[in-house]
Amino acid sequence: MNPMFFVPLAGIVGLTFVAIFAQWVIKQDPGTARMQEIASFIQEGANAFLRREFQTIAYFIVGIAVLLLIFLGWQIAVGFVMGAVFSLLAVFIGMNVATRANVRTTSAARSSAAQALLIAFRGGGTMGLSILALELLGIFGLAFLFGVTRGTPENAHLLVGFGFGASVSALFAQLGGGIFTKGADIAADLVGKVEQGIPEDDPRNAAVIADLVGDNVGDVAGRGADLFESGADNLIATMIVGLAFIPTYGWAAVLFPLLSRAIGTIGAVLGVLAVRGTEKRNPIISMNLGFLVTALFSVASFYFLGTYVMHEIRLFYCLTLGLVSAILVSFLVQFYTGITQKPVKQIAEGGKSGVAINLIYGFAWGMESAVVMIILVAVVNVIAFYVMGGGLPGIFGITAATLGITEMKGIIMAADAFGPIADNASGIAEMAGLGPQVRRAGDVLDAAGNITKAITKGYSMSCALMTSVVILFAYLLSAAELAGVGSNTLASLITFSGANPEGAVMQIVRRLSLAHPLNIAALMIGSTIPFLFSSQAMKAVGRAAFRMVDEVRRQFREIPGILTGQTVPEYSACVDLGTRHALREMVAPTLVGVAFPVAVGFLMGPWPLAFYLIGVKIIGATLAIFMFNAGGAWDNAKKYVEEGHFGGKGSESHKAGVIGDTLGDPLKDTAGPSLHILIKLQNILAITLLPLFYAYGLQWR
Amino acid sequence: MNPMFFVPLAGIVGLTFVAIFAQWVIKQDPGTARMQEIASFIQEGANAFLRREFQTIAYFIVGIAVLLLIFLGWQIAVGFVMGAVFSLLAVFIGMNVATRANVRTTSAARSSAAQALLIAFRGGGTMGLSILALELLGIFGLAFLFGVTRGTPENAHLLVGFGFGASVSALFAQLGGGIFTKGADIAADLVGKVEQGIPEDDPRNAAVIADLVGDNVGDVAGRGADLFESGADNLIATMIVGLAFIPTYGWAAVLFPLLSRAIGTIGAVLGVLAVRGTEKRNPIISMNLGFLVTALFSVASFYFLGTYVMHEIRLFYCLTLGLVSAILVSFLVQFYTGITQKPVKQIAEGGKSGVAINLIYGFAWGMESAVVMIILVAVVNVIAFYVMGGGLPGIFGITAATLGITEMKGIIMAADAFGPIADNASGIAEMAGLGPQVRRAGDVLDAAGNITKAITKGYSMSCALMTSVVILFAYLLSAAELAGVGSNTLASLITFSGANPEGAVMQIVRRLSLAHPLNIAALMIGSTIPFLFSSQAMKAVGRAAFRMVDEVRRQFREIPGILTGQTVPEYSACVDLGTRHALREMVAPTLVGVAFPVAVGFLMGPWPLAFYLIGVKIIGATLAIFMFNAGGAWDNAKKYVEEGHFGGKGSESHKAGVIGDTLGDPLKDTAGPSLHILIKLQNILAITLLPLFYAYGLQWR
Repeated sequence: MNPMFFVPLAGIVGLTFVAIFAQWVIKQDPGTARMQEIASFIQEGANAFLRREFQTIAYFIVGIAVLLLIFLGWQIAVGFVMGAVFSLLAVFIGMNVATRANVRTTSAARSSAAQALLIAFRGGGTMGLSILALELLGIFGLAFLFGVTRGTPENAHLLVGFGFGASVSALFAQLGGGIFTKGADIAADLVGKVEQGIPEDDPRNAAVIADLVGDNVGDVAGRGADLFESGADNLIATMIVGLAFIPTYGWAAVLFPLLSRAIGTIGAVLGVLAVRGTEKRNPIISMNLGFLVTALFSVASFYFLGTYVMHEIRLFYCLTLGLVSAILVSFLVQFYTGITQKPVKQIAEGGKSGVAINLIYGFAWGMESAVVMIILVAVVNVIAFYVMGGGLPGIFGITAATLGITEMKGIIMAADAFGPIADNASGIAEMAGLGPQVRRAGDVLDAAGNITKAITKGYSMSCALMTSVVILFAYLLSAAELAGVGSNTLASLITFSGANPEGAVMQIVRRLSLAHPLNIAALMIGSTIPFLFSSQAMKAVGRAAFRMVDEVRRQFREIPGILTGQTVPEYSACVDLGTRHALREMVAPTLVGVAFPVAVGFLMGPWPLAFYLIGVKIIGATLAIFMFNAGGAWDNAKKYVEEGHFGGKGSESHKAGVIGDTLGDPLKDTAGPSLHILIKLQNILAITLLPLFYAYGLQWR
Repeated sequence: MNPMFFVPLAGIVGLTFVAIFAQWVIKQDPGTARMQEIASFIQEGANAFLRREFQTIAYFIVGIAVLLLIFLGWQIAVGFVMGAVFSLLAVFIGMNVATRANVRTTSAARSSAAQALLIAFRGGGTMGLSILALELLGIFGLAFLFGVTRGTPENAHLLVGFGFGASVSALFAQLGGGIFTKGADIAADLVGKVEQGIPEDDPRNAAVIADLVGDNVGDVAGRGADLFESGADNLIATMIVGLAFIPTYGWAAVLFPLLSRAIGTIGAVLGVLAVRGTEKRNPIISMNLGFLVTALFSVASFYFLGTYVMHEIRLFYCLTLGLVSAILVSFLVQFYTGITQKPVKQIAEGGKSGVAINLIYGFAWGMESAVVMIILVAVVNVIAFYVMGGGLPGIFGITAATLGITEMKGIIMAADAFGPIADNASGIAEMAGLGPQVRRAGDVLDAAGNITKAITKGYSMSCALMTSVVILFAYLLSAAELAGVGSNTLASLITFSGANPEGAVMQIVRRLSLAHPLNIAALMIGSTIPFLFSSQAMKAVGRAAFRMVDEVRRQFREIPGILTGQTVPEYSACVDLGTRHALREMVAPTLVGVAFPVAVGFLMGPWPLAFYLIGVKIIGATLAIFMFNAGGAWDNAKKYVEEGHFGGKGSESHKAGVIGDTLGDPLKDTAGPSLHILIKLQNILAITLLPLFYAYGLQWR
């Protein structure tokens, strides 16, 4: 039997379980009328946001599709639209289930912590599986349409349109959602906790519903679109690089990534099924069981893939190396952001001597964490390269390691979407005035969610950096093909045999030399773009929060009886304000994200653009990991103080902790995640437009 | 007459004016007995610090010199010792004058603001000139000794030892001084201003003398060693790159940088002489006159150099382009950190809605400023390259632009050392209890000093980045020579003529290709090192401040009568504590700075090391500029609020401003400046050890 049948089959199995988990969640008890009312506020707000966001995106999608049709042909345009639509569809399904799972989690928490965990986790699992299944089916469908699976593998180049579509959706979803969620979060905290001294998620706070909506549109929908894109880019890039290995492995070289992803989909289903709550156990332990099942299934399947499909045991080593690095990343994140670890304790303790020292330590530990994780990725690359013996096969080793690290995506996404569901659940418990034991159960889930969110961020950034190396090779291969050199180019580009290769390849090699000033200049420009993009995202959050603070203060001032609980604040005013603002603010950074690679591609040419891109990738990843981990550590340092250390709540350390957290929030939840998307968007945009840069771009002397 | 006579002559003229200005400063009135007593505390503390710091450095110098002697020959070892000793000598002279100029500035401020400005500026000018003159004489002397000026220009390679020596001194001086000064500054602020509510520089604060000592050992001595190194590296790298241009310009290609620096020395003397205080005018305007004189003299001399010495008018354009970019950098810094500009106002206003928004805006504007300045450098590189027609001559264009931007160094260093002298002067006024009008005069000078300090930092980072491109070429040339290819290599490395060059060059070009995974991995590692180094520097400051806070609190608690002014605090206990701490803390980051390039050089080989280095340079520069400008903007945002905006002193905005400033302080005064040194140290270390990497390092397949 042709093993390719397994690919659509795995996609269909995945979608089936999406339906099963969604139905299972919906048939759970939605709780009291008050709880349902609160949940419906959140659901309406989130849906309204998504509707308006999708509208805005739709204009861009249509506009870009027309341009692609004119300049690059129908295949790219069709792929683009499909990528965008599939991405939005996955997000829509996932968020819809999440906004139903939240209140049901709260409701279950009243009687059974285990059941609450299960609802939240399966709610998240729906998102993880719908992403995996839809990207697999979408790319497989396109590959089938373009004949990649049926005798014309070189058409794998045409798949880039799908990745580009997914990128554009993701950029908007992540930026819009990120600006919304942090604007609301900061405003709710500043006016509620700091100025009025009321608890988090207190119903008297006008921004509280906006904050809970933000969890869904930012953390669920935004991150979902982000991971959809990662997976798509990763598949497409590895397939394109596979083209260079047809002489060695035959067609399997191109189709191997699809098979590996299909395995990942099944592994994710098994992993989600393996998670079972118990009353006593820490939820993280239950989830670790899910990770373990996925990992073991994957390793076993890798062995099968390596030996029986690819007939190369060393590929099994590389795949496993990637998987192991995913686990290492998760440990590193737990060290740098974990509440019982040295960094968090030192940050918390620093606050005893003043805010400055809390901030300095958070900054310093965050920076160190980025260094360790980037060096890990560099080392994994080098090892995978040499496990295959270096040279051309070494590149395939790197490709395999990249597929290995992304293998855990489904289960990690499930654990990630679990986070905002749990967060929402404890917010609903607080707003509905449920008893302290329900809230405590919610808090336990919420704390577990914080860890899984931190892990996902570090993990997905490491995946992105690994993938970006493969994408660089895909880019260089595509460029070489445009320069009229066959797909044996990659060998000449990177191997170092004694004989001089043919002239055309040599010209490419020389154009890729670090010794050219234009390449150095492009590397400089590329390395700074993540700073520019972060700067814009942070200013947008600052403005959004600034306006929302004004609105919440206005309501407290102008509407009598809010503070005494006699009048309900106008929640929807905050949701509306945030939505309008976020959708307006997401346009300018998007234009920067698009304009720079296009300008470099045309003005400096396709080869310096490769240097530009590697700069964007490396610095984007470093900066993002710094932001994620510093933000996570600040958050947990505050929690550590709140647990009663270094003076506990109300002490100097606590004030310092709160301030550290408010700086960390936009770093970890808006600027950092947006960088993730920036990297991928620019990569895929560059590959998509490469034929235009090649034909019309300036070429240096 | 041989124009080279002009070089030592300019050095001697420079040293003569060092003596003249120093004597002029010393013969000014040192003020009352109380003022002299305070000044003597500062002087003793600073001298004690420098003595112990020099001892620590001496051990390293001797150890490294022995290793260099064994592995690389006597020329490198002698150059190394000379570089280190000349650097420390320049710093010693400059700081000695500065610690005398401070109290005389205070004293003069009692009667004449103009005279006070003049004393502070000429005190700073002594530092600027002693650096310029000593580096010029040192390098010229070595070049003469090795025969570079007398028929064996290729020995310019041997000059790298001098740069390495200057680097090692600078790293220790900047790190040790930076940790000391910020530890003391933060501790003095946290306990004094925040906890006890006493003014800045209040004599009751035990850390106040340590803080004033810190201005001298950090801002004067540390920055001085830093700029000495920049100048030395710049000269040496441009001379080495000049070797490739002997076929075009003859010996002049190698000696041209020395001539350009000699012109700069005379220009700096004229500039310092041109600064005259007046009673009414803003001090910045007086200083701008000095800048203008230096700039005009330089442009005129560039014309002479270009047409009569080099016979190439386009070199004049490139030199002038560099000079103009220095001026643009200064405007950009003034925009991003100036107290009347949009960024600072927005940061200050953000504080109205809470600390978080102040911090977010500071972060965002600082990031943006780095992007703009790095892109400016990239564009200057590209323009200079194409002004000379691209290809090989283009590289010489970049070299000339680099010499152009560094031309303003002397006068900018004078303005920079002016800053801490003015800062000390107003501290002495406060401690001696002089009347409000004296303190006001001091504050005006101090505010001007803040601007000049910010300009110097941005300027010197831009110089460093420009220089680092030239150093990359010097590195590649040296490596190519080791690979047995003559100095015509550079042409083949960067030009793109149709014909295939000879085999050996081609092998180098291929080894420099972005398409090799090892190069990509090296770029990743290099890009993260500035994050690691900053992290260590910040943790060191955090620890130093933490301990000093404890000491100051202890004195308030255990020594009765401090707060009422009846007992004098034990100032020397703080100075001692800070000194011990700073000298211990500076060792670990130094080891990181040295270990990484050595490890990469041996384990990955000399070619990936080039990628590693460019990563360190670009990211180091970006991160440092972000830190400088964000720190400067936070500082001025606080001042803007203190001037009475957004609620003024004591308001929420003010509290937010103070917190922003305390985060900005270690960024702009310790981590940022240390990055500056890290970049240069790693560059010069790599070139120095290149023969060893080439001989013993692993070479990739």
